[in-house]
Amino acid sequence: MHEFEIIKRYFSKLSLNNQGSLNLNDDVFFEKSQKLVVSIDTYVEGTHFINFKNPELVIKKILRSSISDLICKGVNPKYYFISGSGNKKKFSKKNIRKISKSLHQEQKKFSIFLCGGDTVFSNKLSFTIASIGFSKKIIFRNKAKLNDDIYVTGNLGDSFIGLRFLKKRIKLNKNYSDYFKKKYFTPSLNLNLAKKLFLFANTSIDISDGLISDLEKLINNQKLSYKISLKEIPISSKLQSLVNQKKIKKISCVSNGDDYQILFTASQSKSRIISRISKTLGIKISKIGKICKHYQKSQIIDEKGDQIGLKNKGYFHNF
Amino acid sequence: MHEFEIIKRYFSKLSLNNQGSLNLNDDVFFEKSQKLVVSIDTYVEGTHFINFKNPELVIKKILRSSISDLICKGVNPKYYFISGSGNKKKFSKKNIRKISKSLHQEQKKFSIFLCGGDTVFSNKLSFTIASIGFSKKIIFRNKAKLNDDIYVTGNLGDSFIGLRFLKKRIKLNKNYSDYFKKKYFTPSLNLNLAKKLFLFANTSIDISDGLISDLEKLINNQKLSYKISLKEIPISSKLQSLVNQKKIKKISCVSNGDDYQILFTASQSKSRIISRISKTLGIKISKIGKICKHYQKSQIIDEKGDQIGLKNKGYFHNF
Repeated sequence: MHEFEIIKRYFSKLSLNNQGSLNLNDDVFFEKSQKLVVSIDTYVEGTHFINFKNPELVIKKILRSSISDLICKGVNPKYYFISGSGNKKKFSKKNIRKISKSLHQEQKKFSIFLCGGDTVFSNKLSFTIASIGFSKKIIFRNKAKLNDDIYVTGNLGDSFIGLRFLKKRIKLNKNYSDYFKKKYFTPSLNLNLAKKLFLFANTSIDISDGLISDLEKLINNQKLSYKISLKEIPISSKLQSLVNQKKIKKISCVSNGDDYQILFTASQSKSRIISRISKTLGIKISKIGKICKHYQKSQIIDEKGDQIGLKNKGYFHNF
Repeated sequence: MHEFEIIKRYFSKLSLNNQGSLNLNDDVFFEKSQKLVVSIDTYVEGTHFINFKNPELVIKKILRSSISDLICKGVNPKYYFISGSGNKKKFSKKNIRKISKSLHQEQKKFSIFLCGGDTVFSNKLSFTIASIGFSKKIIFRNKAKLNDDIYVTGNLGDSFIGLRFLKKRIKLNKNYSDYFKKKYFTPSLNLNLAKKLFLFANTSIDISDGLISDLEKLINNQKLSYKISLKEIPISSKLQSLVNQKKIKKISCVSNGDDYQILFTASQSKSRIISRISKTLGIKISKIGKICKHYQKSQIIDEKGDQIGLKNKGYFHNF
C-alpha cells in the first residue's frame, strides 16, 4: 500500500482534534500557539542511502534532507535529534568519530544544535532525525492560486546523476563524478532564503522525490493543474553537457532524485521582488511554469512544444 | 562501546553551546525559553520488543515508554510522532488497522495527539517515537540532596515476569500469565502525578532499565551514594507469591525490566505531603531508601540486614 494512502486512511483521524498537525498532510508539524515546527523522517540503508562506506557524507545528506523540510516552509531549523540503529561495525569508534565530526561541520554551517537521540542495536542500519524550529507562521502546501507562477531554486537533477554514478549505472570522468557525488551527498540548502519566502511564496515544498512528484504533492488537495516547460527547468552546465552527449534525458534527471531545492508558487505580481531577492542573496530562482485551471490536464512541454508523457513521476515510498 | 560512553565522548560537545540540551545527560531535551520538552527513542524488534505478533500491544508499550520520559520529569505529554520501518507483512492492512486503533485508545487515555511520522521500507522492524510536551520547568537528573529519601511509585518487577513468560522462561497459570503480560505490554503511567512532582521531588527518572540501573543513572554525576532496603521495594501480591514459591528472586525482578514507574528523591520534610498526594490520587508511593555520602559505597540491604551483591545492575544498551 502506498504511504500516502496508509496515512490518509488510518492515521489522519488520529490527529483530527488537533489543528496543528495539518491532518498529516504537510511535510512539517506546525503548532501555532507554541510557534513550534517539527519534521521527522527515517532513513534506511539500501533505501534512502546506498551504503555506509562514507559515514561522514551519509550523515550530512540525511541531516540536510531533514532540515530542508523546515527551510522550504520558511522556518530556520534550530535543533535536531538523531537516533541511529545499527550494529557494532556500523557504529565503530572510527565511524562514530566521523559522524561526530560531520555533525559538527553541519551545525556550524546551518546554526543548528544536537539535542538528543538514541543509539540502539540492530542488524539493519537506519537513522531517524527530528528537526525543530520556531516560527509564528509557515508556508503551507495546497495554497497555490490560479495563474500563479511556479518557481524552483538552484539546479535540479545533479543529485540523481550522483546517485546513478554511485550505483555504477553511469560512467563519468573524475572531474564530473566528483561534482555529481558532492551534489548527491551535500545538496545546497537555501537557508538564507527561508525567512524571505513569506514575502512572495503562496505555497512551497522541497524537492525530495523529484520535481513532478513533489509538484503534484504541493497541490494534491487543490482543484488545479500545472503547465511547466522543460526548457525552463534549471540544470547545471555539467548536467547539460551530459544531456547534450545523450548520456541521459533531462526529464528523467529532474523527475527523480533528491535535489532539496525549494519549489514554490507566487502570484505574477511578485516576479520583481523575487528577482531582486534572488540577486541580493545570490540564489538562482527560475520560473518554470504556471498553475492552471483544474479541468486542464497537467502538462510538461518539451523544447519542441510537444507534451511529454512521464513513465515515472518520481520516487514514491511504497510498501 | 557502551551507549553512555559513546554519547559522552563524541556527541556531548555538539550540544555544548546550547543550554537546553542538558549536555545530553538527561532523558529529555528541555528548551526553557520555548517551554519545550522532547523525548526521542527508537524501539527495535528483538531488542526492545520480542516480536510483532501483537501489534496492538507492542504499539501501546513503546508509546507509553516514550511518554513516560516526560511524565517522570513533571511534564504532561501533548504530541507524539511515530516513524515505522518494516516490511509489507509487518505493515499489512490488518496490522495497520490494529496499530491505528491502539494509538486511538492511547490518545484518549493520555490526552495526546499524533502529529506526524513516516513509514519506510526495511526488512528489520523498528519504530522511533518522539514525544513533546510544554512546561516552564522540568525535574532534572542529578539533583538529589544528601539525606534525601528515595521513593518509587507503583509496583516493580511485574513487567519483567511478563517478559520472561513471553520468552517462555517461566511457566505460569493463565490467571497469572494474563496479569503479568498486561503489566509488560501496558504498564501503568502516573499521568496525574506529573504536575504534582514539583511539590516535593528534587530529582526524578522513570524506571526503564531496572531500579538499580536507573537509580545509578539518576545520580551518576553526583558524589553521592544510596542505601536501599529490599524489603521496602514495592511488589504486587502476585509477584510476592512467585517469590514465596521461590520461582524467582525479588532482587532480580526489580533490577531488570521496564516498569515505567517514577523513581525520585525528596527531602525528609516532604514525607507528609507525599503521603497526602499519594492518598488523594490513589497512587502508591513507597519510600525505599536514602541518599548517602559519596564515600559510602551504595548498598542494597536484604531482609536479614545483609548486603546484596548484584551481578547485573539492569539492562544496558550495549554496542
